[in-house]
Amino acid sequence: MPLGKRTDCGDAKYSGVQVAFASDITASLQEHLDAGFDFVTAPLINPEAVCKSIPADSIQLPYAHDDILLVAPRYSNQVVGIASAWREPDASDAGEKRLSGAQALRLELEWASHMSLQACILPMPQGRSCAHLACVLNQVINGLSNTSMWLKVPLRPAASTGTTVSAGDPWRAWNSVRSLCNHSSKLGALLEVQAEVPPLQEVLRWHGEPVKALLLPTNAFLTNKRGYPTLSRAHQELLTRFFQMGVQVVLSGESRHSAPSAAPATPAENGFPTPSGSGSASTVAAGNGVAAEVHPLQPYHEYLSYLFRRPPLPAGQEEMEIGYRDYLQVPLQPLQDNLELQTYETFERDTPKYTAYEEAIHDALLDRVPQSEAATRTTVLMVVGAGRGPLVKAALSAARRTERRLKVYAIEKNPNAVVTLHRLIAAERWEDQVTIVAVDMRSWRAPEQADILVSELLGSFGDNELSPECLDGAQRFLAPGGISIPCAYTSHLHPIASAKLWGEVQGYNDLEHYETPYVVKMHRFTPLSPPQPVFSFHHPTKDPHPDNARSTSLTFPRDGLPAALCHGLAGYFDTQLYGNVILSIHPQTHTEDMHSWFPIYFPLKEPLLCPAGAAIEAHIWRCSANHKVWYEWALTEPSVSAIHNPNGRSYFVGL
Amino acid sequence: MPLGKRTDCGDAKYSGVQVAFASDITASLQEHLDAGFDFVTAPLINPEAVCKSIPADSIQLPYAHDDILLVAPRYSNQVVGIASAWREPDASDAGEKRLSGAQALRLELEWASHMSLQACILPMPQGRSCAHLACVLNQVINGLSNTSMWLKVPLRPAASTGTTVSAGDPWRAWNSVRSLCNHSSKLGALLEVQAEVPPLQEVLRWHGEPVKALLLPTNAFLTNKRGYPTLSRAHQELLTRFFQMGVQVVLSGESRHSAPSAAPATPAENGFPTPSGSGSASTVAAGNGVAAEVHPLQPYHEYLSYLFRRPPLPAGQEEMEIGYRDYLQVPLQPLQDNLELQTYETFERDTPKYTAYEEAIHDALLDRVPQSEAATRTTVLMVVGAGRGPLVKAALSAARRTERRLKVYAIEKNPNAVVTLHRLIAAERWEDQVTIVAVDMRSWRAPEQADILVSELLGSFGDNELSPECLDGAQRFLAPGGISIPCAYTSHLHPIASAKLWGEVQGYNDLEHYETPYVVKMHRFTPLSPPQPVFSFHHPTKDPHPDNARSTSLTFPRDGLPAALCHGLAGYFDTQLYGNVILSIHPQTHTEDMHSWFPIYFPLKEPLLCPAGAAIEAHIWRCSANHKVWYEWALTEPSVSAIHNPNGRSYFVGL
Repeated sequence: MPLGKRTDCGDAKYSGVQVAFASDITASLQEHLDAGFDFVTAPLINPEAVCKSIPADSIQLPYAHDDILLVAPRYSNQVVGIASAWREPDASDAGEKRLSGAQALRLELEWASHMSLQACILPMPQGRSCAHLACVLNQVINGLSNTSMWLKVPLRPAASTGTTVSAGDPWRAWNSVRSLCNHSSKLGALLEVQAEVPPLQEVLRWHGEPVKALLLPTNAFLTNKRGYPTLSRAHQELLTRFFQMGVQVVLSGESRHSAPSAAPATPAENGFPTPSGSGSASTVAAGNGVAAEVHPLQPYHEYLSYLFRRPPLPAGQEEMEIGYRDYLQVPLQPLQDNLELQTYETFERDTPKYTAYEEAIHDALLDRVPQSEAATRTTVLMVVGAGRGPLVKAALSAARRTERRLKVYAIEKNPNAVVTLHRLIAAERWEDQVTIVAVDMRSWRAPEQADILVSELLGSFGDNELSPECLDGAQRFLAPGGISIPCAYTSHLHPIASAKLWGEVQGYNDLEHYETPYVVKMHRFTPLSPPQPVFSFHHPTKDPHPDNARSTSLTFPRDGLPAALCHGLAGYFDTQLYGNVILSIHPQTHTEDMHSWFPIYFPLKEPLLCPAGAAIEAHIWRCSANHKVWYEWALTEPSVSAIHNPNGRSYFVGL
Repeated sequence: MPLGKRTDCGDAKYSGVQVAFASDITASLQEHLDAGFDFVTAPLINPEAVCKSIPADSIQLPYAHDDILLVAPRYSNQVVGIASAWREPDASDAGEKRLSGAQALRLELEWASHMSLQACILPMPQGRSCAHLACVLNQVINGLSNTSMWLKVPLRPAASTGTTVSAGDPWRAWNSVRSLCNHSSKLGALLEVQAEVPPLQEVLRWHGEPVKALLLPTNAFLTNKRGYPTLSRAHQELLTRFFQMGVQVVLSGESRHSAPSAAPATPAENGFPTPSGSGSASTVAAGNGVAAEVHPLQPYHEYLSYLFRRPPLPAGQEEMEIGYRDYLQVPLQPLQDNLELQTYETFERDTPKYTAYEEAIHDALLDRVPQSEAATRTTVLMVVGAGRGPLVKAALSAARRTERRLKVYAIEKNPNAVVTLHRLIAAERWEDQVTIVAVDMRSWRAPEQADILVSELLGSFGDNELSPECLDGAQRFLAPGGISIPCAYTSHLHPIASAKLWGEVQGYNDLEHYETPYVVKMHRFTPLSPPQPVFSFHHPTKDPHPDNARSTSLTFPRDGLPAALCHGLAGYFDTQLYGNVILSIHPQTHTEDMHSWFPIYFPLKEPLLCPAGAAIEAHIWRCSANHKVWYEWALTEPSVSAIHNPNGRSYFVGL
């Protein structure tokens, strides 16, 4: 049964258990399902046969017994195969010829695929045999439809980490195999947790990797005062992190804790508290009052269930965004296209954003109009890109609170939004204060000049929806000394590892998608260095012919960080609306609960291996031509990529 | 006028000279053409204007005067532009806004393209500005049709070489720019020779690069005892090497040697000997008896002409192969396809090969049949894949020489070749000795067993035309203790740099071509480490079920070697025919004058940067399935490539 009902952890709710080879796998499976687990991982072949090695003319390995075929649909969902650690036959195996390790492995993987198992676990090869395993694996993977391959990788404990011992870094072996297999989406990692807990940095580097499951040995468990299994705080945190990445747990090893009573204790009795509203999920299978025999691994399942259910459920905005995790969207082009109703609705619900705008306008009104002139002096405020009116509302609310006189022009080019805007003004009886101007701001001739120009034209990367060009154009409406809200914004960028995001791009299988930036709620990724500022813009500008082309080179230090594969750059922005009122989607300064913007992701055509400690040098250009603006980007350290998107050939924003 | 008439050096026969900015470029050009040069390299812009920098609203730079347009066709062939070394305007250039270096460079490069100049020379950027120059260059390159871009790169002299100072390695900067420009075929290097000669290793690394021209300063010249310019032996070797790679020379700098007489000396009088049969080409322009004024650079041109003409002209096979240099061919599949007449003719002309076969058969006959049995014992020899009969001829010739009795079966599946074979036998009256068997050897049932099995089924990589499979099959014709000629063969492989070969593959713009090995007369390439043995096969085999699948991992040490870009692997083979009779296309043991096989080239999808001294680890697999054999290959050091050609998806040899 699932570990809990939460929806924010994907398939992590299904837990597995590693079982020994059994000739009657159906019985073994049922026994473990009864103990609460959802699937088992089981050797496909009798290990004794592996030791003896197989005659070369064998075309059929000694698989677990045949009647598994009778329950194939169930088997495929509930059994993950474990491939044997084939070794090459000894040279001393004279006489009868033996099947080579590669041949045997291929037969075994093809069997797993034939059975439509959800996955098959492979042992991590040592040293040079990496390439040979990868060759077999890559050939098989190219023909897979349902089955995934999970490569078993030990999670390196603290003692062996550090930047100097990269030769012993299991991530490197993993990276070799998946690179040799051309980053196939069919290949994932099964992380082997050790009794010793790895340092946080070692855990974080796997967030960007396709980890499919954790293998958790029973000897990693401690015993609580009531004799039940429990985990150290560090192991708890480890599991919680991976649960949140949607990573399943597979328990391995013998039970080391006897279940004290036949009628088992509830979790609270076990010594760990029951999270509110989730007690029933941990009730054991044999809860019918009959004194059933408890499976020795059942207390472990109960503990995992407790851990799984413990973190608070996501609420509000966070809950809404679950469905958007790692989902790539091409950025909006509001200047070129008209937004849809639903888009307006989503954005208008972003209360923190409009509260900040109201504060900015509030402060600007107080600064501009002293109390003595409050009743006599009218401030002219223009909203460029008024949409369905949220900034008009914010402005009028600020005026009310400050008791300043305000005249508002609401300029909006989308005729559909203007319909709603008219209704809002009529319903609120704001006709005296608000003038709706249903034109493209670029062609409007204003009847008077504005004291304050308010806009919300920023994209995930700040300038990427052409705010600089629009506001430079709209500046002609602004009186000398007038205020632009926002008055400045800056983009930020850093390199990331994210097999997930890159894999989505690879799936399109064309150049264009590698040369397009995406708006995406990044979830399974690892930052490779903190973000750095990229391009800044200020409004109003004093330059009569402002040049909004930009270019910059950024060096991202990675001292003390382990080797990683860079899959691209992640971008953010922050903006100063007015005075000390700012909005930010920069991870370190993110405006609380604001949801209008996800980060932006610039992919690389080829992921780039970054050795331990090696800095990354990135370059980005904001280019413009007559009717378009676009970005180009490249890496030059630790090695050199091609420049992506020359001349905006794959992606540009139309002016 | 061209430096000489030789055909083996491509466009190297055209030499250029670097001239200063001239408002009347037509006159300047004519003056230098009269001195013997074929083209000039000239600044496109008055350097004084560059120093002052250009106002930002300029859309036209101060180009060399306008009437060059009147002679555009001539201009485009005979002038290579030199772009200015634009610097960014100083921040202190207050007041009027200045064109940025990038903007000015773009205008200049686009002007060169507009003029259809054959090329435009760019200065090598320093440090980080590499990426910014590359961005402009890459954008312009994507729109080029006729014009090439030559990046000026200093040829590093001995003092600054070594593996430790890669930061100061100009090749690294070159490599960054061309990688950022995605290895465009429009981008080449102009190598700046210094007065100090570089070490050989530094010269060799440029063989694999798209070097378009050498820039040779007059101050690199010495003075001979008659007062004429001459070069040191090291500089001579440098030029000769690059001439043979088709690289042009551009002379730069003032004349440092006065031409002693108005009626100039012939080269012999200048103190350097005239190569036989090429004296006329160096006769000066004003050779009409009139005392014309000699251009001060003319003696340099004469010396270059002498150097160009000095090496012996290629003859025979070497001359024939000129047209095949760096020309990619997909390997033959003689088992699947029937060879054409012309292919047979080409191969049959390979005297060294058939001489070796005759020697091998000769030795085998003597070993098998003692003199005492010479008249009584008949040796049965089968030629499997007899083609039009060259091995039949060689066998009969060996029999004659050894005075041994021989019975020959000539097995050939190509009905077209059999026609010629019948005519040969009839013409030579060999009907009693030779039986023609016009079948596929795989389906033949032999009437008796052979003592010797002779075949020529090897490809450029030894086993790549399925010799192992064919000979294993034909082994059933062979009597116990019988001999196979060849009795063994081994393939060899090493990593190479070759922008030329890789560029040819890139031109196809699809995955398949990156996953195909090519037979090619490699010319513009640099070996990155000596070849190492790969796969060996022996015949006859004792194994009743021989497994011809193979895999191997090779580590290529590069201690002391500079950084390089690996474009793929080059393959060769050698074979033991019998005893000590071998054939080889391995560069270090190549059979003299044998021309039947060019090397084989395995490309990489992405060229791989190898730091100075870093070893390269490569893997190759020979795989087989029911009806096909194919190779897969990958690199894992210094970084990891994907495995190429999984399951033979792009290339295989049909069984």
